[in-house]
Amino acid sequence: MSSASRAPGRPLNPAIDDQILNATQDLLIEEGFERLSMDAVARRCGASKATIYRRWPSKTALVVSAAAALLQPPPVPDTGDLREDLLACGLAYMQQEGRTLQVLANLTTATQHDPELREAFREAVSSPYAGLFDAVLGRAAERGLIRPDLDLDTLARVFPAMAYQQLAAQARSLTERDVQRVVDAVLLPALGTNAVPAPTSL
Amino acid sequence: MSSASRAPGRPLNPAIDDQILNATQDLLIEEGFERLSMDAVARRCGASKATIYRRWPSKTALVVSAAAALLQPPPVPDTGDLREDLLACGLAYMQQEGRTLQVLANLTTATQHDPELREAFREAVSSPYAGLFDAVLGRAAERGLIRPDLDLDTLARVFPAMAYQQLAAQARSLTERDVQRVVDAVLLPALGTNAVPAPTSL
Repeated sequence: MSSASRAPGRPLNPAIDDQILNATQDLLIEEGFERLSMDAVARRCGASKATIYRRWPSKTALVVSAAAALLQPPPVPDTGDLREDLLACGLAYMQQEGRTLQVLANLTTATQHDPELREAFREAVSSPYAGLFDAVLGRAAERGLIRPDLDLDTLARVFPAMAYQQLAAQARSLTERDVQRVVDAVLLPALGTNAVPAPTSL
Repeated sequence: MSSASRAPGRPLNPAIDDQILNATQDLLIEEGFERLSMDAVARRCGASKATIYRRWPSKTALVVSAAAALLQPPPVPDTGDLREDLLACGLAYMQQEGRTLQVLANLTTATQHDPELREAFREAVSSPYAGLFDAVLGRAAERGLIRPDLDLDTLARVFPAMAYQQLAAQARSLTERDVQRVVDAVLLPALGTNAVPAPTSL
């Protein structure tokens, strides 16, 4: 937002942004995406619709921000050990408390009928997580830790797809045991690195 | 249904069953699961509600039958070649024309809010397909074609999860190329069988 469009004497207030995002999360959980309106968000948090629209030009932009605010993808792990890095990528998907899961499940559902929301959701929410696997695998290839001819695009999609299915079809997050199984039974063998973890590994 | 509960002089008529399932599919596509009612199905196909309830005791049972009627999981493939068998399992997910995809996408969405529907959908629709991978991998293990200590449960879930994500998050079916990539880049290497397909293979 350019400062020229800001009303004089009404500086942006990060606390108000938080309240708006929080109200949006509440309404996503209580009402779902379809029934959520900018009016209802404004009523819930006591902000004016103009305040909301100054920051988020559309309902799609607002709900995607509200979801992204609940998630903090970690930096690309770099422990020096491919297995540990892959486990860290997978565990990043698990740090989701009930509120986050509910918001994600509701939005995941809504994306199925709304291509614009689907694209915005992928860009702001899914890609930062899926990108962890892309980054770790790409770096392993650069370092010569894995064969250069592997289909890394497909391999990087395995874990995100399994996490997505669990969330969307079963409304639950993967467990730590699930993460280990995908890494040890699928990814590492498919990468040609059947490393047995050292007993003292993290 | 026991014949004792059938009204005298009103034998079951398979053509009416087909009309009811067809009307249910239409309404799932047009209205979605939430708004679909037994009344609307009855009106659409000209059957009485009693006729519908004699065959399907609940809306959940009816919509799951309507979805299953669009799908015909093949018998477990047994070509004598593990790669061909896995490709056949994956390709079974692709034989879905637009109508089927729309019904599945709508029901997939609805299952997220409805645990009873989720369970019925899994049993009647998802499991017969996912079971193809279970069967092919289990048989390969019995025949000694793959190592006995593999985590076949996790490996069997990879493809169904990737197909589900594509359907639910992107509203499209996997392509034949996608199927090949998952089999060749993920499953076969993870199974420890990096077999290069023979040029004359089916």
